[in-house]
Amino acid sequence: MYVVCVRVKVKPERVEEFLSAILDNARGTRQEPGNLRFDVLREEADATRFFLYEVYRTPEDFAAHQKTLHYLAWRDRVQDWMAEARVGVKHTSLFPPDRDW
Amino acid sequence: MYVVCVRVKVKPERVEEFLSAILDNARGTRQEPGNLRFDVLREEADATRFFLYEVYRTPEDFAAHQKTLHYLAWRDRVQDWMAEARVGVKHTSLFPPDRDW
Repeated sequence: MYVVCVRVKVKPERVEEFLSAILDNARGTRQEPGNLRFDVLREEADATRFFLYEVYRTPEDFAAHQKTLHYLAWRDRVQDWMAEARVGVKHTSLFPPDRDW
Repeated sequence: MYVVCVRVKVKPERVEEFLSAILDNARGTRQEPGNLRFDVLREEADATRFFLYEVYRTPEDFAAHQKTLHYLAWRDRVQDWMAEARVGVKHTSLFPPDRDW
């Protein structure tokens, strides 16, 4: 699997709007045939920090995601709400075996 | 859900041993009743960096994990193989709803 992990720090006054926007993106992404997960987490120690765990079958599925309307709408909508630049890190999976995702 | 994300940087000459050790820990953890996932990922840009995505039902389930033999054996086994201190960040989940994990 191809897993993209994104760390997000949101301006405190924009957290509620951010939550609405990221859930729209998550639900849209889960409809993509190449997407397996889109978990949205909130950091225990800082309620303005979020973590996105995005699982795609292949790098090409992630590239297709970045062309979808729900992704592009999200990207533009949240642009001014970030307190820090987003950090996205790409991974390949070692465990569990691909058949068990 | 209670999600622990751990970033690991391994000494290059210890990567193969680390892989064996982390897979033992992952398989053991998946047998815990309070554990839902233990994904082991490798960073695309740096083959000595790994990411662990550990999902527990509750913080108490994570605390129980940290007392298991497979966790303690792993912790001791890899101690000298780290190139940097491990970074673990705890989260609560917002999406998907708990029933869908």
